[in-house]
Parts: sequence; C-alpha cells; structure tokens
Amino acid sequence: MTEVPSINPRTGETVEIVARETTTAEVDRLCAAALTAAEPLEALGRDGRAALLSALADALEQARDRIVAVADRETGLGATRLNGELTRTTYQLRLFAEVLTDGGYLEAAVDHAGDTPMGPRPDLRRMLVPIGPVAVFGASNFPLAFSVPGGDTASALAVGCPVVVKAHGSHPATSQLVFDVLVEAARKAGAPDGALGIVHGQQAGADLVAHPAIRAVGFTGSTGGARALVAIIEKRPDPIPFYGELSSLNPVVVTPAAAADRAARIGADLAGSFTLGSGQFCTKPGLAFVPAGPDGDALVEAAREAIAATEPMIMLNEGIANSYQRGTAALSNTPGLSLAASAADTPISKPPSAPGSAGSALSSAPDAASATMPTPQNGFRGAPLLLTATADDLPREATEECFGPVAVIARYTDEGDLFAALATLPSSLTATVQRGPGETALPAEITRRLRSQVGRIIYDGYPTGVAVSWAQHHGGPWPATNTQHTSVGTSAIRRFLRPVTWQNAPADLLPAELRDDYDNIPRRVDGRFQPVP
Amino acid sequence: MTEVPSINPRTGETVEIVARETTTAEVDRLCAAALTAAEPLEALGRDGRAALLSALADALEQARDRIVAVADRETGLGATRLNGELTRTTYQLRLFAEVLTDGGYLEAAVDHAGDTPMGPRPDLRRMLVPIGPVAVFGASNFPLAFSVPGGDTASALAVGCPVVVKAHGSHPATSQLVFDVLVEAARKAGAPDGALGIVHGQQAGADLVAHPAIRAVGFTGSTGGARALVAIIEKRPDPIPFYGELSSLNPVVVTPAAAADRAARIGADLAGSFTLGSGQFCTKPGLAFVPAGPDGDALVEAAREAIAATEPMIMLNEGIANSYQRGTAALSNTPGLSLAASAADTPISKPPSAPGSAGSALSSAPDAASATMPTPQNGFRGAPLLLTATADDLPREATEECFGPVAVIARYTDEGDLFAALATLPSSLTATVQRGPGETALPAEITRRLRSQVGRIIYDGYPTGVAVSWAQHHGGPWPATNTQHTSVGTSAIRRFLRPVTWQNAPADLLPAELRDDYDNIPRRVDGRFQPVP
Repeated sequence: MTEVPSINPRTGETVEIVARETTTAEVDRLCAAALTAAEPLEALGRDGRAALLSALADALEQARDRIVAVADRETGLGATRLNGELTRTTYQLRLFAEVLTDGGYLEAAVDHAGDTPMGPRPDLRRMLVPIGPVAVFGASNFPLAFSVPGGDTASALAVGCPVVVKAHGSHPATSQLVFDVLVEAARKAGAPDGALGIVHGQQAGADLVAHPAIRAVGFTGSTGGARALVAIIEKRPDPIPFYGELSSLNPVVVTPAAAADRAARIGADLAGSFTLGSGQFCTKPGLAFVPAGPDGDALVEAAREAIAATEPMIMLNEGIANSYQRGTAALSNTPGLSLAASAADTPISKPPSAPGSAGSALSSAPDAASATMPTPQNGFRGAPLLLTATADDLPREATEECFGPVAVIARYTDEGDLFAALATLPSSLTATVQRGPGETALPAEITRRLRSQVGRIIYDGYPTGVAVSWAQHHGGPWPATNTQHTSVGTSAIRRFLRPVTWQNAPADLLPAELRDDYDNIPRRVDGRFQPVP
Repeated sequence: MTEVPSINPRTGETVEIVARETTTAEVDRLCAAALTAAEPLEALGRDGRAALLSALADALEQARDRIVAVADRETGLGATRLNGELTRTTYQLRLFAEVLTDGGYLEAAVDHAGDTPMGPRPDLRRMLVPIGPVAVFGASNFPLAFSVPGGDTASALAVGCPVVVKAHGSHPATSQLVFDVLVEAARKAGAPDGALGIVHGQQAGADLVAHPAIRAVGFTGSTGGARALVAIIEKRPDPIPFYGELSSLNPVVVTPAAAADRAARIGADLAGSFTLGSGQFCTKPGLAFVPAGPDGDALVEAAREAIAATEPMIMLNEGIANSYQRGTAALSNTPGLSLAASAADTPISKPPSAPGSAGSALSSAPDAASATMPTPQNGFRGAPLLLTATADDLPREATEECFGPVAVIARYTDEGDLFAALATLPSSLTATVQRGPGETALPAEITRRLRSQVGRIIYDGYPTGVAVSWAQHHGGPWPATNTQHTSVGTSAIRRFLRPVTWQNAPADLLPAELRDDYDNIPRRVDGRFQPVP
C-alpha cells in the first residue's frame, strides 16, 4: 500500500509518514458506518447538533497551537494566516449553530387542505431534510477552512449529514490531527460513531464518490479534478449532486476616476491582494483593467514596485510550484503580454520599458523563460510576477486562472475598449470595481455587464477575504462553480438538504416542525409568512 | 429538412405537417434573441412579470377550446383530462404572480458592516437573480402542464428568464398553437421579443443545450434522454445546471390494518390510479405491497376485477405503445411475476390461480406473450395489466418503471418481509402508505424507511394528482430527479435563480430590494428575519 507522506514545502523534505492510502474495503466500511450514523445524527435534533457544532469549535480552539504548528510546517502558509483560518472555521461552526436554532433554513411550509380552482387540495407540508452521507474533498489551499474542518464539513454536520473527508495529499498530517480532535469532541458531544470519517489517496477519493451510501459531494479544487469526479458520478446507477468550487479569474476594473483619485494606493493594494497567501486563493484577482494615461501609469508603477520588492514565495506543494512555473513561463512568452515586474531576487532581465510604457503599444515580451524558472532553492517556491497587456488585444491566456502570485494588468483607452474586453471573460467567483469618490454611472454599467458572470461584486475593495455571514455568496457560473449554490456563509447548508412533502399525514407522523402547534421557527402557512411570535 | 408530423394516436394517421425540424442556424438565432431579451424581461420587474403571467393565463383561457381540441386529437388524453391540465397551468401562472408580489423568493439578506471574531466585516447584501435563458424540454405526457406552457416555462418567465422550448414530437401542433397564443399575449403584456422561442426536432434539442446563451435546462422525460443531454452539457466549456424529472416507481404499501378495513376499495382505487391517463403519469403507482391472507386476497381480487373490466387504452405515441408492449411482455415472462388480470378484450389465457393464490408460493408465469401483444387495432393502444409477486422473492424487473397502465402487487407475510423488500427499491418521486383507521406505528416505521428515497409521502391516498401549492414537492433522488429541486409548486422557480452578493455597494448600485429603506418584501437583516411590516 502506498504511504502518505507529510512534506515540508519550505524544504521539500518528507517529515513523516502519516498514513497509508485507504483501501477500497476501508472506504466501504467507512461509508457503511456513515450511513448507519445518519439517523442518530439527525435524531440529535437542531439543538443537539447546535451543541455538537459548538463543541467542535471549542475542541479546535483548545488544540489551536498544535494544529497551527503542524499546518504551518506542512503548508508554509504561516502562523498568522493559519490562526485566521482556524478562527474562521470556529466562527462558521458557531454561526451554523445559530442557523439551527433559528430554523428558517428548513423552509417549512404548511398548506392546509382546501379548495382551489384545480379542485380540492390535500393537506401538504414540506420541509428540508438531510440528504444523507456527504463526501468532502479537502482543498490544498485551505487546510483549516475547506478541508477536514471548514465550510463543507460544518455545513453537512449542521443539517445532520455524516461526512467522509478525502484528505488532501498536500497536508495529510494536519488533516489527520484535526480529524482526531474532531472525532473525540464529536463523541463526547453525543454524535454517533461514523458521523465523521477520513480517507487518504486518490483512488480512495474515486471509491468514495462511487459508493452507494454517499449522497452528495462537496469539492474545492480544479476544473480537471471536478470533471474527473463528475465522470465517475455519471457512471453511478444513481448519479448524485456534485458541488464544485473550481476556478476563478476575479477581474478588477479600475475606473479612470479611481485611478485619478488614488493610483499609487490601488497599485500597491492590488499587488498585495494577488500575492496574498502566495496567490493561492480562489479569489485572487488575476486580471485588472486599468485606464491608459498617466494615472494608470502611476498605478502600474506602484504595482511594479511592490512586486519587485517581493521574494519568491513558498508554494503549497511541488505540483503547484511546478504548475506555477509552467504557467508563468507560458504567460511570459505569450504575444501580447509584457513582463512588468518579478520578485526581486529572481534573475530576470527586466523589461526595457520606462514607467508608463505598459499602457502604450505592445512591445514583444522579453525572453522571460529565465524569469519564471527561478533557480530552485530548497522547497517549493514561486516568484511573484506582474504582466501587462492592452485591453483591445488581450490574449486568451490572460483570461485563464494561473494559480499563484501572478496577475495581468490590461490597459484600456476608453469604455468601448473596456466593455469589449469584459465580454470575453469567463465567469468568476467575484468581480471588483474601484470607483472614483461618489462615482456611480460607469460602475453601474460595469456591474450590469459583469453581473451574469459572477457571484459577488466588490466595490472599492479586493476580492481576497471572504467574510462568513448570512448574506455572503461564494459561487458563480462555471468555471467558478458548477451549481448556483455557495460554499461560504449560512446558505452553504442548502447543498446538503432536500425537500420532502408529507401529504395528508396524521400529526403523529409529521416532524415536529410541521405540526400545527409548532411556532418555534419561521414557516409559510397557507402561503403567508409567519415569523416566530 | 425533416418534416414534423402531427399524428392522431387513436388512428395512427398523420393529420398535418406542423413544421420542419429547426436548423442549427435557427436555434442559434433563437438563443441569441433569448439572450437579448434577458435584461428587458428582468427589467419588467416583479410587478411587470406578475402582470405578464396573468396575461398569459388569460390568453390560454381564451383559447381553451381550440387548445384542448388540438391536444386531444394529438394525444388521445381526452377533453376532461386536458381541460384539467390547462386549468392547472393557468393556476400555476397566477400562483407565480403571487409569489412575485410576495418577494420572499428572492431570499434577500442584508448584513451591515460590523466587527466579527474574524475581524471587520464589510457590508454584504445578497439576493437571487435570474440565471439567464432557459431551455425547456416538453414532456410527452403533459402537453399542457410540462411542455410549451406549464411549470418549467412559467417558473423561468416568472423570475425573468427567457425560454426556448424544445417541443415534444408527440404533440407538435399543440405546442405550436399554444406557443403562438403565448407569444401574442406576451408581446401585448410588454415582454421583449425573444422572451419565448420554440424549436422542433431532436438535433435542435441537442443544439439548444450546447448553446452558450442557454444557462439552464428543464427536462421531463426518460433517464436515457437525460443522460444523453447531460453528456452534451458536460462537453460544454461551461457546463450548466440540468434539472431532470425522470423515472419513478412510486411504491404503495397497504398495511394489514388498512386491508382489513377496506380491501375492496383500495383494490379498485389502486387500479384506477395506475390506469389513470393510460398509466402515463410520472406518479403512477407501479408496485404495491399488500399483505398475504384473506384481506389482501380481497384487495387483489378487487383490483383484478377492475382491470379485467378495462379495455386497451390509447397511448401517447407509437414509440410509447411499442415500448409498453415490450415492457409488459418482458414482465409477463419474468420468473416470479404472475399475470393476474388484463384488459377484457385482450386474448390472454388467465392465470390458473384462484383468488388468494397470488400471496401463496410462486407459480411459474403463464405463457403470457400473447397477453402483452394485443392484436393491433387502429392507433396506439396498450392493454392494462396487473401482475402479482411475493415480496420475499421480488424480481428486479418489478422494481423498474414500466411506462403505461401496468402494476405489480407484491404480497408480504410479515414486517420483516416487507422491510427487506422496501430496502431494494430505487428512489421515487413518491411513496404511499394506506393505513388502518388511526394506525400510526407501522406507518411511522414505513415512513422512516422510505423517507430517504422519496420526495413526497402520501397517506391514505394515491400518488397520481400533484397539487400546485407552496408546500408541494415533486422530486426525489435519482432516478426520480437528478437534483434536490422541484418542478411543481412555488419553489420550482428556485431552479432558475442564482445568488449574487454586493459588497460595500453604494445604494445607487444596489437593486431596490437590497436598499436599506426597502421594506416591501421579507428579508433577513443582520441575521434576523424581518417580515413585511
């Protein structure tokens, strides 16, 4: 059986062997246990599961130092970021506890029997119920927020679905440690055995989505990985819902008024946003539209200076580092893209242009192969990179996500130029508009043109950083996601719920929330919304 | 170009040529027009679209006689049923108008900026927006409720999505007539050109789901058809949501107490339910579990008598009639299934069993090939058929949908017998429990075991007949549907909506429903539910 190593990305060295890849027989046993756990987990009730989520949050807090240390060693993301990620996860667990107490998520509806133009209508009562055991695929880039702990696991457990996590090979030690912490806390909080399971290895992931007990899949990863899993699901006798959070370009538009107002600040902040976390965020802004002319030039110059002052950054794993090197090498050699700046200690030949030329006619890209193949240091590193282009001749390559600390600034000369370029973009999780003070006309037009392509529109900020709240949405048309559902915020639980309607059921056979005398949750009764009194 | 004929299923004759199959170029033009119509259709606003839906309902009412006459000629479903179907559709259109006025469907949420344990949170505001142009595939068996008019078209138009319908080849004249009625009414009500389109032909359907302008698909049909369309969608550069309502067995369980209470009535009603509309309902009960012993025997005998008194029924088209003949021939020759009754004038050799033997040890099935191949009359007909089996040796064939007026009654000797058989069933749209007076224990246990497999549980009724209401749900795990969403009732619109979040947006750039001063719809503000004052 293949061993699962924990590798330190700062050195490239294997630190320990965490586990062996999970066998098909073990996957089968875990899925059967998850199925058995489904009824008792649901039977804990909303209050019981709210207490469970709080207990999980407490346990993660108590093990915080150990968890962050292992995760830092295994991901190179740094203690500050990882502490923030863990806080996010405990916050999300506690927020879901509030959602359970509120009960509105059940979408309970009661229609009493009555006459209609279609004839007599029976008594109909509908609410959402757990979909069943869920497979969660851990993400490379969020070891604590979208992996063993995090939004998907919390969403599923909240509504009463057992979870089997496919641990990401990039941080198996973190996954196993956190899993052990969660399992112990869940047991103490009264959760049934089998409510949480973990598997390691690619074949185990494939076995998982094919298993009859698994009723839905939560996935954060690449479009290629998603398509491979969907192909397995389509071969099931009973295909199941697959919720993928996949790939995103996250365009930023800086209006002329915004550039006139604060060019240097936007340039520096943009560079900060696309290099944050080594550019390994699904919300990394990969393409920014900046006006031609002196204001835009100043913005680009500020971004150039910020990038030139960086150093090659630790990447999550060897595969991502290699993919980043290949991707940036290809971008640097793409006609229509000019290298504007790269990390300071990377032996690159800077482009021959003076500040401002990025907005002028295209120069052929310098031979940048060397720029994107930094002398390998120990570990897995990627050099931040800024490229420029013109919006009226934007190469297709600039509109595709390249995972890591690279972005393209496309200069536009007028609105026609800008709008034509926006129309060529793929869908994204986010779009961002930097406005001038009080400016609304052009931002409204940009919003109108981008809304069908994105799930969140940010004004005068940056897409990195996704708050967990009731009104959040983290999704968008393909390739951002493959459904309309979200993986962040309170409505993330909707993915793991399905409606059931009871027709002419005697009160004894109804869930408590659908009985006439229940008034502890908001419900729609005979078409009228009834809040909690 | 291939002609699209309108065929009378009562005679098998082509009555007229309705159209030519739509070419790829025409599909492209219609989809482009739909995309252009998306913004003005949304811009009509909730009130404008509520008025549009009412106008469509009025126009259908005014053309009722013409529509029903053509539909009856083309489907053989009869004027009573078709009038009911049209009433259902106009009722659903008017109910959606109420949903628009209510506004709760937008799931509007406002989170004001504030501090959280994760740090400061920006202002976030979320609501659902139309997904874009929708392809609707008309169903063979609901020419007026799931075709050009009906739940899918009404759902999409309600929320502001243009629709291009793929007309079903089984009723092209009805489709074209209703389309013309709707288009004229829509234009008068202020809908933009392109808000409604129609295509004919299988290739046109394939072109439609592959077209970049189409953002979601609503489909009612076979699992095979669904899988073929999903395969096309998965080849798109941007796969889109596919909502399929597919195949359903709809098991019925009669408890011993129910059989003791009203065996004859249940037997007759069950026969009525599975032959209603020539058994061509997605909610047709295809398998009923009936206790062994005298009460169950009386139930089976009543069902036998009812079926023996029927005549071969008009089927929707030649393909369905042929498929029904093949399917019933196979069932009749399946070991473990016994022929109990068939339509009166079908030349079959009745099984040699006396009443009651259906619950006893299996006899080998009679040579029933002749029973299921009735002498062809004019037109497309299928002979109603009742088969029996024992629950402890239920053949797999009895658990698969056979479209048409056929059902299997499986006799069970005890609860263990029954529960073991229930565990082998595929998922369905519905499950039905016939209880004894006041009985709850066994019905509760049956409910517990079937809930994960179905979308609606009916007590002391029959699954055929799906009321349109707020609490209705018409779905279930595969093969009933391929998502958790419903195609009947108010929440059917959720399929054609997607969330968008605005972050730190100035009020001028927000939709009216998300501004601070808007209180005309229920919203969740800072986590608290706020009904309309």
